[in-house]
Amino acid sequence: MSDIQRAGTTPRYSDYTLHNGVVYCVEVPPDEAADIRTQTAAMLASLETLLASAGSGKDRLLMATLYLTDMADYDAVNAVWEAWLPPGCAPSRACVQVVRLAAPGWKVEIAVQAAV
Amino acid sequence: MSDIQRAGTTPRYSDYTLHNGVVYCVEVPPDEAADIRTQTAAMLASLETLLASAGSGKDRLLMATLYLTDMADYDAVNAVWEAWLPPGCAPSRACVQVVRLAAPGWKVEIAVQAAV
Amino acid sequence: MSDIQRAGTTPRYSDYTLHNGVVYCVEVPPDEAADIRTQTAAMLASLETLLASAGSGKDRLLMATLYLTDMADYDAVNAVWEAWLPPGCAPSRACVQVVRLAAPGWKVEIAVQAAV
Repeated sequence: MSDIQRAGTTPRYSDYTLHNGVVYCVEVPPDEAADIRTQTAAMLASLETLLASAGSGKDRLLMATLYLTDMADYDAVNAVWEAWLPPGCAPSRACVQVVRLAAPGWKVEIAVQAAV
Repeated sequence: MSDIQRAGTTPRYSDYTLHNGVVYCVEVPPDEAADIRTQTAAMLASLETLLASAGSGKDRLLMATLYLTDMADYDAVNAVWEAWLPPGCAPSRACVQVVRLAAPGWKVEIAVQAAV
Repeated sequence: MSDIQRAGTTPRYSDYTLHNGVVYCVEVPPDEAADIRTQTAAMLASLETLLASAGSGKDRLLMATLYLTDMADYDAVNAVWEAWLPPGCAPSRACVQVVRLAAPGWKVEIAVQAAV
């Protein structure tokens, strides 16, 4: 099993898994009550820390899936996203509006794969 | 093409594909009329069989995406999920509520990547 | 960074990223006003071109996630999808109905991983 690395493993999920040079992680906002810009910025800051701890980084994203609960937040999310990404490093990206995320106040969730 | 293995291939999908040490598969419940616990347990049992047939296993999941049709089912799904997962082996996991799955009675669907 | 290849990179996304023999890409329909068959066919035609430019192809798909905005389009999407896929090459596939995609007229979006 030593070929799979995991961090922050609970009975439900791991903060990340790493295998064969690719790290898989999902991040959500730390504060359900915050507005969409704050939720997105804080989520991406957490993601950045997590990627760094896995030996990857926001300049090494391969694929990102953004789940929004309101497509009216699209421009705000994009503004934060584009300011956060280093130039020339954007991953493939899907962005869809779902009905709800696990916590009722979450407005955004991101799942990524990144190269280590 | 021998570097990609597939099983259960129909004109629409394969039960799994395998490439470069990673298996990709999607599972749905076998019984549309069952309650959420039964649907989840049966879906995960099918996934377990599928992963084993690919030379992987539920202790080698890297990423899981859970699609629910009602977030009110969240606790029930988690209870079955956590009982099913071996200790210390949880993958990265996203869980979102979508509007509908392909069959009207499906309450849950799972897409995973796992190490072989 | 030379171990990650990207094409069509904007500040928001790349048309594809490629790492370790796997290409990641997302496609949307070019014409928001078209019907579901036309949107799906045009999206898959774009995907085919993109995959070819990455040294992959529609016969080398590993995983596909189809996001629909109306499950009533399921049969139409499947008809186009199955006619487009070469025999024996179907990937693992998830298909879910979301609330909305980024452009209001998009009826379908696809995210894939494929072997190079």
